[in-house]
Amino acid sequence: MFRHPSFRIEPWSVTETALDLDLLAQTESVFALSNGHLGMRGNLDEGEPHGLPGTYLNSVYESRPLPYAEAGFGYPESSQTVVNVTNGKIIRLLVDDEPFDVRYGQLLSHRRVLDLRGGLLSREVEWRSPAGATVRVTSTRLVSLVQRSVAAIHYEVEAVDAAVHVVVQSELVANEAIAPRASEDPRDSAILDQPLEAEESLASPAGGILVHRVRQSGLMLAAAMDHEIEAPRGSQVSSQASADVASVVVIGHLRPSQRLGFTKFLAYGWSAERSRPALHDQVTGALQAARHAGWKRLVSSQRKFLDEFWAGADVELDGDPEVQQAVRFSIFHVLQAGARAESRPIAAKGLTGPGYDGHAFWDTEIYVLGLLVLSRAESVADALRWRHATLPAARARARQLGLSGAAFPWRTINGAECSAYWPAGTAAFHVSADVAYAVVRYLRVTGDAEFEREVGIELLVETARLWRSLGHHHVDGTFRIDGVTGPDEYGALADNNVYTNLMAQLNLRAAAETCSRHPDRARELGVGTEEAASWHDAARDMYVPFDSRLGIHPQADGFTEHQMWDFDATPPDAYPLMLHFPYFDLYRKQVVKQADLVLAMQVRGDAFSAEEKARNFSYYESLTVRDSSLSACSQAVMAAETGHLGLAYDYVSESSLIDLDDLEHNTRDGLHIAALAGAWIALVDGLGGVRVEESRLVLRPHLPDELEGLRFRVTYRGVRLLVGIASAEARYQLLDGDELSLWHYDEELTLRGNAEVCRPIPAVPPQPAPGQPKGREPRRRGPG
Amino acid sequence: MFRHPSFRIEPWSVTETALDLDLLAQTESVFALSNGHLGMRGNLDEGEPHGLPGTYLNSVYESRPLPYAEAGFGYPESSQTVVNVTNGKIIRLLVDDEPFDVRYGQLLSHRRVLDLRGGLLSREVEWRSPAGATVRVTSTRLVSLVQRSVAAIHYEVEAVDAAVHVVVQSELVANEAIAPRASEDPRDSAILDQPLEAEESLASPAGGILVHRVRQSGLMLAAAMDHEIEAPRGSQVSSQASADVASVVVIGHLRPSQRLGFTKFLAYGWSAERSRPALHDQVTGALQAARHAGWKRLVSSQRKFLDEFWAGADVELDGDPEVQQAVRFSIFHVLQAGARAESRPIAAKGLTGPGYDGHAFWDTEIYVLGLLVLSRAESVADALRWRHATLPAARARARQLGLSGAAFPWRTINGAECSAYWPAGTAAFHVSADVAYAVVRYLRVTGDAEFEREVGIELLVETARLWRSLGHHHVDGTFRIDGVTGPDEYGALADNNVYTNLMAQLNLRAAAETCSRHPDRARELGVGTEEAASWHDAARDMYVPFDSRLGIHPQADGFTEHQMWDFDATPPDAYPLMLHFPYFDLYRKQVVKQADLVLAMQVRGDAFSAEEKARNFSYYESLTVRDSSLSACSQAVMAAETGHLGLAYDYVSESSLIDLDDLEHNTRDGLHIAALAGAWIALVDGLGGVRVEESRLVLRPHLPDELEGLRFRVTYRGVRLLVGIASAEARYQLLDGDELSLWHYDEELTLRGNAEVCRPIPAVPPQPAPGQPKGREPRRRGPG
Repeated sequence: MFRHPSFRIEPWSVTETALDLDLLAQTESVFALSNGHLGMRGNLDEGEPHGLPGTYLNSVYESRPLPYAEAGFGYPESSQTVVNVTNGKIIRLLVDDEPFDVRYGQLLSHRRVLDLRGGLLSREVEWRSPAGATVRVTSTRLVSLVQRSVAAIHYEVEAVDAAVHVVVQSELVANEAIAPRASEDPRDSAILDQPLEAEESLASPAGGILVHRVRQSGLMLAAAMDHEIEAPRGSQVSSQASADVASVVVIGHLRPSQRLGFTKFLAYGWSAERSRPALHDQVTGALQAARHAGWKRLVSSQRKFLDEFWAGADVELDGDPEVQQAVRFSIFHVLQAGARAESRPIAAKGLTGPGYDGHAFWDTEIYVLGLLVLSRAESVADALRWRHATLPAARARARQLGLSGAAFPWRTINGAECSAYWPAGTAAFHVSADVAYAVVRYLRVTGDAEFEREVGIELLVETARLWRSLGHHHVDGTFRIDGVTGPDEYGALADNNVYTNLMAQLNLRAAAETCSRHPDRARELGVGTEEAASWHDAARDMYVPFDSRLGIHPQADGFTEHQMWDFDATPPDAYPLMLHFPYFDLYRKQVVKQADLVLAMQVRGDAFSAEEKARNFSYYESLTVRDSSLSACSQAVMAAETGHLGLAYDYVSESSLIDLDDLEHNTRDGLHIAALAGAWIALVDGLGGVRVEESRLVLRPHLPDELEGLRFRVTYRGVRLLVGIASAEARYQLLDGDELSLWHYDEELTLRGNAEVCRPIPAVPPQPAPGQPKGREPRRRGPG
Repeated sequence: MFRHPSFRIEPWSVTETALDLDLLAQTESVFALSNGHLGMRGNLDEGEPHGLPGTYLNSVYESRPLPYAEAGFGYPESSQTVVNVTNGKIIRLLVDDEPFDVRYGQLLSHRRVLDLRGGLLSREVEWRSPAGATVRVTSTRLVSLVQRSVAAIHYEVEAVDAAVHVVVQSELVANEAIAPRASEDPRDSAILDQPLEAEESLASPAGGILVHRVRQSGLMLAAAMDHEIEAPRGSQVSSQASADVASVVVIGHLRPSQRLGFTKFLAYGWSAERSRPALHDQVTGALQAARHAGWKRLVSSQRKFLDEFWAGADVELDGDPEVQQAVRFSIFHVLQAGARAESRPIAAKGLTGPGYDGHAFWDTEIYVLGLLVLSRAESVADALRWRHATLPAARARARQLGLSGAAFPWRTINGAECSAYWPAGTAAFHVSADVAYAVVRYLRVTGDAEFEREVGIELLVETARLWRSLGHHHVDGTFRIDGVTGPDEYGALADNNVYTNLMAQLNLRAAAETCSRHPDRARELGVGTEEAASWHDAARDMYVPFDSRLGIHPQADGFTEHQMWDFDATPPDAYPLMLHFPYFDLYRKQVVKQADLVLAMQVRGDAFSAEEKARNFSYYESLTVRDSSLSACSQAVMAAETGHLGLAYDYVSESSLIDLDDLEHNTRDGLHIAALAGAWIALVDGLGGVRVEESRLVLRPHLPDELEGLRFRVTYRGVRLLVGIASAEARYQLLDGDELSLWHYDEELTLRGNAEVCRPIPAVPPQPAPGQPKGREPRRRGPG
C-alpha cells in the first residue's frame, strides 16, 4: 500500500507537484473530471505520454460477443464495453519545432491541482525543450456540471527566457491507439480496436466536428469544438478535419513573457435513434451555448453548483487533515459520477476509466445511492428511473431464467445481462432486491409520492414477483431461497444466504404495502389481493438460518460447517486471493471477500438483536480479507454500531484512501466510486449512526478517539440538517426548513428554525477487540 | 425415439438394407470399426455423401486455446480436440466417366452388414449411373484387432448388364473439409479447420504415404497404403502423391460379370517424439506385415480374436431377439473401444466420432472398465496404466488447486484438464476416486500382484492424498468434503455428496491397506505410518448425510430441502433439460440428470441397508430424468436389487438400444460407449446380481418375466464362468480352469471341472412400482 508521494494534504484540493510517469495512469483516474454524462480522464493536454487515454459518454458502448468454451442455456451472448470516444482534450504544442513532451527536454516545474470546490483541474508546467527554449504552459479544464454536454479548457503558453516560435494544435481525435495489456485479472476491461466508424468530419474557422458510429452497437456520437483565441498580433489560425482528426492550429511568435492562449469549448452528444444531422445540430447547439456562456461564466456556474452541493453534503473532521481531504475527494467523485447521469447508469468506475468494461453493478444502489440519497436525492431518482427504463430487459431475462417479474442484470450498460460467469453473476439475484431497497430508502428519505406511483411501485412489484418465484415454501412452513450467490464473492450458489433472504423479505413486504397504498396502480400492474397476500406470506415465512452451536448467523446454510481458510499459511502476496486460488477452493471454505452477513446487519439492522450483531461482527471480522473495495465501509458501520470505534475509524480511513493511495493497485483503470461513497457511509452511517428507519431518521453517534470532532450534513425530507459530534455530545441544527423530527438514540427530538439542540452521547463500554485474518488488519489510523 | 427402420433383427450382425441419407451420420457411428488405437467411421467408400467423415488415431489431437469471457485462477488455458486424421477409406469410382455417387443415378440395391463375430463391415451395392450403366460394388473393411496399426479393405466392382469402363481411385486424403455446424450443445466437438500440415508425401507403384504434423499440438502422424490388385488384362495402374492426397488409380474395361478389385492395406502411426523418417519406417513396416499376412489371414485372425473374446463375454437372452442383438452390438463396440488402446485413454465415444472432442471422462472407469474387467481384464490394466502415465499432469493439477496428491482431469486426451466450466468439471473430484475404484476392482477380480506393486499402489496413494487434503475434520469429529460436484450434472458444488464421500472412503481405505501390504513400496512413495493412519481416520470418520424426516439419503447436504422440479409443467420437448433451462435452476431444485445416489448404492452397496436401498431407489427414481445416457444401467442394477425386475429390464433395453435407436439424438457424433457397456452391466450386475466384494464373487440372480432365460460369461481370477439363469434357478459352470469359489446369495459354492451346479433363486416379493417423472418413464419392454 503506497501513496502517491506528491499529493499534498490540503482541505479542498488534491495537488501534485512532481510528475511520476509510473503513476501517470493512477493520476489520470484521480484527476478525472466528469458530470455523470461526460467524463474525461486527467490525461495530459498534449496526449502523450499517457497511462490510459480516456473520454467517455455515459452509455456509449461497443457490443462484443461473449466466448464460451462450453455453451450453456441462458448464457448472455454478448457484452457491452465502454468506448473511449473522441478525445477533445488534446492540445499539442510545438516549441521551435520541437514537440512539447515531458519525456524529453527538462521539466522545470510541474503542478496539477484538482479543485474540489471549483470543479476544475488546473495544470502549470515549466519546460525547457531539448534545444533549450523554455515555456510555461498553463491549462484549466472543466466538465460542466451545469451544461452536461459541455467541457472547456483554458490554455496558455508563455515564453519564459527567450523568444520562441510556437505551434499549438488543438484537436478532436477518434480511435486513439491503446496499448493492449495481457491480463488474467477479471476486473480488467476488454480491449477494443478502432471501435469508431467515421460518419462526418467538418472543420469550421476555429473549430470542427467529428461524428462517428460505434461499429457493432451502432450508437452514433458527435464531438464538436470551438475556440476563443487570444494570440499576439501576427499569429495565424487554421483548421482542418479528416475522418478521425479535426484540428485547429494556432501559430505564433512569442517574446519573453508574452502569451498565446485560448479557451477551447467542447460539446458532446450521442444517440441510438437520432439521425446524423440531428446529432450534428445537437452538439453545435450545445457548443454555441457554451461559447455564449464563455469561460468565466462556465467557471462561476460550476462553483455555484458545487457550493450548493457542499452546503448539504460536506463532512468536516477535526484532527485528521489527511482523511479530511480524502473524504472530500471521495464525495466529489461520487457527485461527479452521479450528478448528471440522468436516467443512465452510474458505473462502478463512474466515467473515470474503463475498468469492469464500464459496467454498473449492484453496488450503485447500495453504496453510491446511499450517499446521494441524503445529499442529492434527485440523482437517486434519476438512477432508479434508469433501472425502471430497463425493466423490459429485466423481465425478458427473468422469463429466460424461468422466473416471474424482473431479474436485473449483474453487470450491464444498456440493461442486458453481460455477466459471462453465472455463479458470480446471474446467480447473485440480490441485485434485484438492492434496487428495491434503494427505492424504499429513497421514498423514506424524500416521501416523493409521484415517484412512488410512477416508478417505485413498478420496480417493487416486479422484483417482488421475482422473489416469489425464486423461493419456495418448505414442508416446515418456511420460505427458502436456494442456490443463489450473496454479496461475498468468495462464496457462491448457497442456500438461504441471509443477506439475500432478508433483502427479499424487505422487498416483498414493501411491494405488498405499496400496492395497498396505491390500489389503482396495483390493479394496473395486475396485482390482485391473492398475489399481494402471497408476498406477505413469503416475507413472514422467510427462513433465516442460525447456528445455535456458535450463536451466530451463518452467511448461508452450511457456511459455518465449512473448513476455515488457512490464513496463517497464506502469504501477503497471495492477496487478492481470487488471483491466486481457484474459485472452487474459495467457495468451499470459510473465507469472506467482502461484507455479506455484516452488510445484512447494516441494511437490515432490525432483523438482529444487539447481541447477535456483536457476535456476528466478531465472527465475520476474523474471516473477512477485504479483497473487495466494498467491504471496509460496511465493516466500519458495524464496527461502530458494535462499539469498536477505533476499528471503525481505521475502515473509514481505508475506504477514503482507496484511490489516493491506490490500495487495490488498480486505480489506473478508474476510481472505486462505491468505495468512495463508502467512505461517506462509514462516517455518516457508521460514526454518525444514521439510520433511515421506516418513517424516522435515527442517529446514534459516537466519536472515535482519533478525532476531535465530526460535523456532517444530510438532507432529509427536503430539509438540511447539520450534525456535530464531539466525544461526549452531539449537536443538531437545521440549515434550512422550519422543522424536523429525528431520534437521538431513543429520544425523539424536534428541531425548529436554526436552534441548535445538544444531547449527550452514551459511553461505549470497553470490550475485547475483534481480530482480522493474519496480515489483513486495516492500517491503524489512531495513535495506537 | 426412433429406430433406424432398416436394421434387421439378427443375432450376430447389424444389417442395413436401404440407405437413408438423413440417417447417414448415425449409421457411420453404428458401422464404425475400431481397435482402440485406430478407428474408422462407417463412411461410404467413395467418401461422399457423408454425414461426418472420420478416421481417428487414439490420442492424436489438436490443441486449441480455451476462451473465457471472465478469466479465473486455475482455469485450463487450452483444450485438446480429436483430429480427423488422414482418411485411408476412400475409394472413388468412375463408371464411364460418371462418378459413383448414390445421390445420382439409381441405387438398385443397398446392403451393409456389421459382422459382430467377424469384426467386418461389408457392403454390397447395385447402382445404375445416370447414363444407364449398372455396376455392383462390394467392399469389406476391417480394422485389425490383431495388428493394431493396420486396416484393410477388400473392394470389387463388377459390370452387371453391359460392358463399362471403370476408373477406381483409391486414396489417402488429409484435411478433409467438414461442414461446420452452429451449435449450442455443449456435447458437440470444436470445429478444426485444416489441422494437418504436410511433412511428406510419396507415391509408390501401387501405394503411397502421407506424413503430417498437427498444427498446434505438433504431433506427427503417418498413413500408408498398398494394394494387391486383381484386374482384367489390359487394366492400367498408376499412382501419385501431393501434400494432402495420395492416390492409386486403376483403369479397366469390364465386360458383363467381369470384376476389377483389390485389397487395400492401410497402416497408421503417430508419435509426439519420433522423427519423420522413424515414423515413415514404422508405418511402411506395419504395411509390409499386413501385406505379408494378406487379406484372408487378416480376416481369419480377426475372427479368431473375436471367437476368443466372445467365448468369455457373450450374453444370451432367450425371448428377446431385439435386445439380444443390441447387447451383442454393445459388447462389440466396447471391445472395439478398449481392445488395443494400450496405455491410451478410452474416450467417451471410443474412436467412433468426434463428440465431446474425443475426450475421456470418469465413465470409462466406472462403466467401460466395469464390463472389461470381467471379460478382458488386460484392457483394464492398460487403461489404468494410461492414468498412471498421466500422474505428473494430475499432480501438477492438484498443486495448482492447492491440494496434495493427484487430481485427475474431468475431461482430457493427454492427461491435462480440458474442462472449461469448472463447476461441472474440475469440481467433480470423484473422477479420482473412480480411478481408484477401478484399480481396486481390477485387483479384486485378477489378484494381479505385479500391477498392484507397479501401478496400483501409486494410483491409490496419490488419490488418497487428494481426498485427505480436500476434506476436513469438523468439530463434531466427522470428515467432510465440501463444495464438490457428484455424478449428477443437474447438481453442482454441494457439500458431502454421498457418492463422492463413499468413494473417497473406499479410496482412502484401499490406499492404507495396500500400503500395509507393500511397506517397501509405501516407503518409496513417501508414505509413513502417520499418513496412512490419517487415511484410516478420514475413512472411519467419513460423513454420510441422512435425512431422517424422509428416511433416505440426500444426494448431498441440503438436497432434500430443495424445491421439487415441476415435472408436470415440463413438456416432452424440454428434454434434455440442460438445453432448455439454465444450470442455476437445475442445480437448486430436486431433479436428477443421472444416477448419483443410485450409483453410490450400486458401487458401495455395503454402505446401505436393504431398506435404505429400497427407499432411496424409489425416491430418486421419481426425480431422475435420464438426460444422461449413463443413468439407465445404474437404475437397472438397483431396480433389480430392490426387486423391480420388469423396470430393470426396461432399463437394460434402453441402455442397449441407445445408439441403434439413437435415443439421445446424437449418435451421429459417435457411440455412447459407456452406456453400451452399461447394457452389459445392467444385465450382468443387474439381473445377474454380480458383485465383486472384498475377496468374493457374489451372484444374486433374478430373471424378469420378459425373458425366458439368460446366460452370461464372466472371467474371474483367470477362470471363465458360465452363468445360466432361469426363472426359478441358476446354473453355474466353469468353462475353463479347475476350481472357483463363488457365492450364490448367502451360500458359498465351489465349482470344479466342468460340473454344473444348480441352485434355486429366491422369489421376489411383490411390491409397489416406483414412479418416474412424468413423461420420462422408460419404454416398457415387457408384455404389460
